[in-house]
Formats: sequence, C-alpha cells, structure tokens
Amino acid sequence: MKTASPRLASRMAGIQPFHVMDVLARARALEAAGRDIVHMEIGEPDFTAPAGVVAAGVAALRAGETHYTPAAGLPALREAVAGHYRACYGLDVAPERILITPGASGALLLALAVLLDPGDQVLLCDPGYPCNRHFVRLLEGEAVALPVDATTHWQPTAEQIASIWGPRTRCLMLASPANPTGTLISETVLRRIETRVRERGGVLIVDEIYHGLVYEEAPPSALALPGPVFVINSFSKYFGMTGWRLGWLVAPPEYVPALERLAQNVFLAAPTPAQHAALAAFSEDARAEYERRREIFRERRDFLVPALEALGFGITVRPQGAFYVYADCSAFGSDSLAFCRRLLEAAGVAVTPGCDFGDHEAGRHVRFAYTTGLERLREGVRRLQTFLQERGEEG
Amino acid sequence: MKTASPRLASRMAGIQPFHVMDVLARARALEAAGRDIVHMEIGEPDFTAPAGVVAAGVAALRAGETHYTPAAGLPALREAVAGHYRACYGLDVAPERILITPGASGALLLALAVLLDPGDQVLLCDPGYPCNRHFVRLLEGEAVALPVDATTHWQPTAEQIASIWGPRTRCLMLASPANPTGTLISETVLRRIETRVRERGGVLIVDEIYHGLVYEEAPPSALALPGPVFVINSFSKYFGMTGWRLGWLVAPPEYVPALERLAQNVFLAAPTPAQHAALAAFSEDARAEYERRREIFRERRDFLVPALEALGFGITVRPQGAFYVYADCSAFGSDSLAFCRRLLEAAGVAVTPGCDFGDHEAGRHVRFAYTTGLERLREGVRRLQTFLQERGEEG
Repeated sequence: MKTASPRLASRMAGIQPFHVMDVLARARALEAAGRDIVHMEIGEPDFTAPAGVVAAGVAALRAGETHYTPAAGLPALREAVAGHYRACYGLDVAPERILITPGASGALLLALAVLLDPGDQVLLCDPGYPCNRHFVRLLEGEAVALPVDATTHWQPTAEQIASIWGPRTRCLMLASPANPTGTLISETVLRRIETRVRERGGVLIVDEIYHGLVYEEAPPSALALPGPVFVINSFSKYFGMTGWRLGWLVAPPEYVPALERLAQNVFLAAPTPAQHAALAAFSEDARAEYERRREIFRERRDFLVPALEALGFGITVRPQGAFYVYADCSAFGSDSLAFCRRLLEAAGVAVTPGCDFGDHEAGRHVRFAYTTGLERLREGVRRLQTFLQERGEEG
Repeated sequence: MKTASPRLASRMAGIQPFHVMDVLARARALEAAGRDIVHMEIGEPDFTAPAGVVAAGVAALRAGETHYTPAAGLPALREAVAGHYRACYGLDVAPERILITPGASGALLLALAVLLDPGDQVLLCDPGYPCNRHFVRLLEGEAVALPVDATTHWQPTAEQIASIWGPRTRCLMLASPANPTGTLISETVLRRIETRVRERGGVLIVDEIYHGLVYEEAPPSALALPGPVFVINSFSKYFGMTGWRLGWLVAPPEYVPALERLAQNVFLAAPTPAQHAALAAFSEDARAEYERRREIFRERRDFLVPALEALGFGITVRPQGAFYVYADCSAFGSDSLAFCRRLLEAAGVAVTPGCDFGDHEAGRHVRFAYTTGLERLREGVRRLQTFLQERGEEG
C-alpha cells in the first residue's frame, strides 16, 4: 500500500476515530495470542433479535421481499411504530411523521441535513455520544459542547441552555437515557428546556435510542412535549437488531416532505429485510422477550454499580437506563486512557476511556458496558480488584 | 398535520424530488383504480437475489450473525470482492482498499465527504444519475454539469474536461455503463481523461454499478488505470440485491484510514445480514444465474431498441449496458415530461422524463427501463404504437 499523504477535506481533521477502537483492536490481538478478555467496552447488546423477528426476516428473504421500499419505509412499519407510541406512551403520532431510516445514524443525518446551514451551531452534551458531533461537522455545522456533570444527572439545565444559546445556535441535541452515563433527563427540566429552545426559534432533537432499557419508571417520550421536536430512535438496542441497521425519525409534520426527498436521494430506503423483520418486533411474544432481557440488564446493573463502588470507583448518579456505568476512576490516577490501557494489558479487562465522549472531566472517567453476562461481569470485577490491589501495593 | 413553513437548510432548495416519483405515484393510483400499467420507469431489476444468496442470508439470520461488523465490512467479504476483481478483470486489488458500504449511496457519500470542501466543484455528466449532484450539494460542494450527447456516446471527452476544469474543481465523476443512457466510455477516452484529471491534481470517481450488465464485450474496470481512482460498485444491479442495501468503494490506499473513520461515524457498518448473503454472490451457481439474467436483459434490449426506433423514437447510440434506453422523443413534441404524463394517462405506460437526469436536451428525451419481462415490454410497445397513432390522427 502507498503511503502518500492525501489531500483530505478539512472536515476530516474534526472527525476523529474512537479510542475504544484501539482498545478493541488490542483486545482482539491479545485474544488471538490466547489471552481471555472480559469485554466491558462494547456498546452493543449481547442479545440478537428474538425468534419471531428472525422468522419474519427469513420469511421476507424467502418470499423475495427484498426490493426497495418507499424512501420513508414500509407503510405497515410506519403504522407499527405509531402503534408502539400509542401502546407504550399513550401518544398519538401520525405514521406520516415517522420515517424509517438506516439505523439511528440515518435518522440523525436526515434531521441535521434539513436543519443546518454551514456555521450553524448544535449544542451537544459533553460527555455524550461522539458520532453526534461528527455528523454536525460532516454537514459543515459547528458542534458546541455543553459540559454536564453528575450534579445535574449528566444532563443540561434550562439555565445553561439559555446562557449558551447564541445567534448562530440552531439546535440542541439531548439523549435520554444518555450514553455514556445511562441517566435520564427529568420531565420538568425537559419541558423547561424545550420552552427555552422554542422561544429562541431553535430546534430540539432528542435521542431516545435507549428507551425501553430503563430500569425504574419508564420515562415519557419527548414527543409528549407541547412544542415541535425531532425524536430519533432505533431497533438496535431495546429491540436487539444492531447489525440489521434500522432506526426511525419522528419529525414535525412540516419537515417531512424535505426529509423524504433527502432520504430518497441519500439512502433510497432503509434495508428491506430488516423492515420486514421489524414488523414482528411489536408482537406480544417479542415484547415479552424484550421485557425478560430488560430484567437481565437490570440485574447486571444492580450487580455492577455497587461492585465498582466497593472497588473505589465514584458513581455519584445511579444510571437509570441504557447499559452503561460512567465511573469516576480518579482515585487511581488522572489519565483514564492510560488506566484503560493498563487495565487491558495487566488484567484482561476492556473498558472505554472518557476521552471518547468529549473533554469535560474525561480524564477521570471510564465507561463500563454491561453487555455481557453476569458471570463475565463478576470475572471482570474480580480481575479489577486484583489489578487495583497490585497497583496499590506498587504505589 | 400542520402546514407551517419550516426553516430549512439552504441545501434543501438544491435537492429536488424525482419527477418519476410523481409518475410512479400516479401509476399506483391508476392501478388502485383498476388500470393495468406497464412499468418501464423503474430503475431496479425485476430479479431478486439467487437462491444461494438468499440461503446464505437465511443462515446468517438463524445463526444470529446480526451484530455490527467492522466499519469497512466483513474481512471475508472484502476478500471476496478482491477475488471478483482478480477473476473477472485480472486485477490485483488489495482487500484493504475495499470498503463495504450501505449501497453505492454509502460509497459515494464516503468518497465525496473525504474529498470535498465547501465550494469545491464536482464535474458530473448531464444527463446523469440525479442523486449524484444532490450528494455534492449535501456536502456543500458545487455540482457542475458536463453536457454530453449522443455524438460522444453520452460520455465526456478529455478536451471537454480540460476546458471546463477550473481552480475550484476537485473531482470528475463518470459512470460506465451510464444511467440513463446505458453507454460505456471507451478505454482510450477514459485513459486520456484520467491523465488530464491527474495532471490537474483532481480526483476521478467512476461509478461501475452497472458492470456485469454489459451485452457485448465486458469493459475493463477503471481500477486498471495507471493513476489513483475511486470506484463505486454495488450488489444492487448485476447481483440483484437492491433492498439489501449493499455496495462497495475501492479507494486509493492513502484515503482508506479517513474513509474507515468516517464510515465508523456515519454508518457504524453496512447491514450484516446483507454482507453474509453477499458472500454467496460470488459462487459458481450464483454466477451462472447472473449470466442467465444478463442474457435475458440482452434479449429485452435487442427487442426494445429496434421496436422504439420503428415507432419514431431516436436512438442514435445503441445502449451497451445497464437496463435503459434513452430515447429522443422530439418527433412527438418538445416537452418530454408532458409526453410521459399523457402516455401514462392515455396508454397506461410509465416511463421516466429526461428532466430527472439534468437539463441538457432533457425536454426531448425519455428513459425506458427494461426491468420487466419481454411480454410486458411487447405490450408496452403495442400501447405506445396505438397512442402515437391516435396522437398523429388528432394532430
């Protein structure tokens, strides 16, 4: 392979790889060399689609139902998602407002592309899901970090939004439950924020891809807010369909024609086999399976949080959803990336460094994902204990 | 649904819907009302994936092989595509240069996003595939039309490129076979063009998604050119996997790290079931099936071209590939969009107006797609004949 330095678009300087990819690559190399690694770095459920969903996918393949669907998705699937909002949230969402997309990634690309002009700002929580700011950069917008911390449940406040909002600010993006912290935004705060954003002529985008994976009272959808809002969701997490690449966007009705036109041009449509399979994801059987899995995730969280606390990690806010624990590791040093590397090499435990989620207090945090079985989590904690003890004895 | 006028990003003014979508919607409405419509507007093969490909997809679903793959695709699939270049073109393409993408759309998005800064120009043939210029607009680049016509086989010349190339020109994009014309670019012209582009520090992107569907001698891939080039391909057309959403990009090696980083952020990965299925698309059985289909497409072309000529359509250049005939309909008026509408209403034949492919001579052309069986094509031609006779008698 040649190694000439190519002339890249300027945007590429702002689109960084994830450090966790290096962690993952090193973990795979260690495994190839015979080491056993406990994976607590992976942001993907260990469960795949339930049997009924797989069966629906198989039936579609066998029937040759693999042509393009309409750009906004199979009408029956848009109806099914509307039914989901009715059944789970008591909300009446017109199917015409729902666009089926290639993953939540596709939904975010559509939303930002119809909203952002070059130089428009998008407010994003730091820490937060790193791809979000890269989508903004892709479209020549400017991502502005909203530093959040445990004192506000890792979510922004209405006052913070009001103080940071400027003439070029176009959007605020929130996630609830959030990645990497697993925390929810309270309904009261969300309502106050939405009012502030609306008063300023801005647009609120809410990422609800971890909805369903909440371990106490289920939160309302941002679609219940009085003002217009864009909501992004996905079949990946709660529905266990990561690699199928299927998500959806609910948009204010006046944006739908532009979104459809854009989807037609940049995707043609979301994957057809996945759309047919997803029709079965709202069945009673599938729902029961998803609820069983939610219990399993809850058990894992209920084991992991106190176990990490007992080892000296700081977890000021108990995560309420998703499958992450964002833990303060400053008791063990001020460079969480170095901590992750040492932990992997010495103890065979893979976790994600805080710097993958932004800059704010990143050096003192790591993210644990509980996307592996309880026995493996126990093994991970045992290894962590030994690792930290040996470290303590060295220091 | 509200009808407020939303504040859209400026790019949306440049991203237009396809007129054929109106044609299609009207055709569906007529069908719903009981009319029989001959569909010659659809740019999607009527064939779906062969049995072996479907079986591989089914096996992957059943085995739960539906997690995310690496961002650049399954290593085995990248190897298989490299094997395809070896077997069909005698070319040695390193698998590391091959990125598996969500359709050719995903490949084009990646290529343009790593290449284009705002205001950078991309030269695109007019007529050409309409989404291309919309991708350029999405990324804040400027699409510059290269008017081409039958005198140069609907392909640009090296002299034309040299004369139009300016200080902000970054890329030239070609398609061979081209949509809507089905014509190939000659190897000699392509080499001369590539030299011109390279001398100017530009980048050549070649769309080869209709490779395999060529009815005389198979053309070489642009990857055989001496200089670096981006090649876009797809499992949709020759491989019959449209709705699976799978394509690939072959890039110069020095661009691969940036492309992978971007893919990781904007797609995560291409659909996993499709990737597993596509592994079977290079088998001997599948290949034999694809070759049988190629013969069927050839028969359709060999019927349709002379039949349209006999009716008075102008087809100066015999299409060599894809499944399109771009026909001059100026004998029947100067507004091809109006012609398409009348043809649909009066005769129940759906075709695509030239204006969907650009401005250059668009009003005097329509595109016929032979993506339906020979019997239906014969019926379409019979209806056309009656329609044109009645029109003639009226006029």
